Amino acid sequence: MSGEAGDATTPVALLRARVADFVAARDWAQFHAPKNLAMALACEAAELMEHYLWVDAAESARVTDDPARRQRIEAEVADVGICLLNLCNVLGIDLASAVTHKLGEADAKYPADKVRGQAKKYDEY
Amino acid sequence: MSGEAGDATTPVALLRARVADFVAARDWAQFHAPKNLAMALACEAAELMEHYLWVDAAESARVTDDPARRQRIEAEVADVGICLLNLCNVLGIDLASAVTHKLGEADAKYPADKVRGQAKKYDEY
Amino acid sequence: MSGEAGDATTPVALLRARVADFVAARDWAQFHAPKNLAMALACEAAELMEHYLWVDAAESARVTDDPARRQRIEAEVADVGICLLNLCNVLGIDLASAVTHKLGEADAKYPADKVRGQAKKYDEY
Amino acid sequence: MSGEAGDATTPVALLRARVADFVAARDWAQFHAPKNLAMALACEAAELMEHYLWVDAAESARVTDDPARRQRIEAEVADVGICLLNLCNVLGIDLASAVTHKLGEADAKYPADKVRGQAKKYDEY
Repeated sequence: MSGEAGDATTPVALLRARVADFVAARDWAQFHAPKNLAMALACEAAELMEHYLWVDAAESARVTDDPARRQRIEAEVADVGICLLNLCNVLGIDLASAVTHKLGEADAKYPADKVRGQAKKYDEY
Repeated sequence: MSGEAGDATTPVALLRARVADFVAARDWAQFHAPKNLAMALACEAAELMEHYLWVDAAESARVTDDPARRQRIEAEVADVGICLLNLCNVLGIDLASAVTHKLGEADAKYPADKVRGQAKKYDEY
Repeated sequence: MSGEAGDATTPVALLRARVADFVAARDWAQFHAPKNLAMALACEAAELMEHYLWVDAAESARVTDDPARRQRIEAEVADVGICLLNLCNVLGIDLASAVTHKLGEADAKYPADKVRGQAKKYDEY
Repeated sequence: MSGEAGDATTPVALLRARVADFVAARDWAQFHAPKNLAMALACEAAELMEHYLWVDAAESARVTDDPARRQRIEAEVADVGICLLNLCNVLGIDLASAVTHKLGEADAKYPADKVRGQAKKYDEY
């Protein structure tokens, strides 16, 4: 985890390439149908969520104060990221473009000056 | 979605900053306890998975052949990405480092020359 | 929803039979591989969870005070139940036995006099 | 797991009472806000789904042929059931009524003679 691998200088494409290389070296693409990857992503997201099951929202910000726990949560975050990047590779989706596009839509849907400080209503979610 | 927003040249940190700006403009950080973001991430992952519910694995690779469907799936992928980046912002996790570190661990755990072409066993998962 | 359909007098097997009849009338068993039903169950659980996304734990007990909201949450609970009963039908699992057996195991694992009033620790979860 | 605990003769209310007794003996109701139980349910559903991650739909019907695997899957099914019954207890939802009501709605929405043998379309899902 040297500094040069960090978010500041790592293009999304480089992370995608690392995931692609890992998969290719094992010839695992044959198992990575979009259906299976979407399932795996949901499983990893659930494992991450498990860390926050019995704590209250306010308390949840302090879970990662414990170094051992932080390490495990970082590993779960990484697992979700790897599944997502893998899925982008398989589906040919440009993640940066998709995220930027979606933020633009959300920006129009939830105008900052109208929704400031208000939780999204369920019905609008 | 201009070319310059693409994965090839966009550092992860820039995507994170866009998500942070979106949240800050709405003063929504108050709702984004890790517990809530982990739940939101799991919900978005489930919405993505829904697109692949009744198709078989082989068939699932063709779902995105339909342009309208592809657009919706890209939007779900973006939602998962936005939740994940938001969580990284809130927890102070460097995603590139976490992914790279986890791939290194997985590389040691599943040596390419031993597992090539074999699905991960459930018990090892 | 007449009284005689209620939990007090309805054996689990009768609910299972209703789900089985619904599926058989549509010839839908062909789509209900365990893999697909497990995915559908996870999707329905996520939809239920969405109702509780932005509220705090304490506040979550009051979400169903709103009659319209209660109705939607009951529908999501039903969807989860239907998927679970469907899966029991397909896998030939006796739900009452499985639940009773698991409660017996949990009773031994978490002795009442030792864990009273303490949240399960994550590591023990 | 004696025969008299089986689905054929066990009313849903009896299962609910067993779950309620288990919780009461540990004074755990304080942790069981609907938000937390909905999260726990989603986590348990994901654990069940994990058993079917890398197999194809057709192959998934044979996973439970292995007795050890069947036992673990039954335990996951039970965990989902326990969370669901717990949530019904906390929210005061009659599961049999909710399931019966929902099946009635689905019966009207998907008329048997029109949808027979056709997978639900995603858009109708």
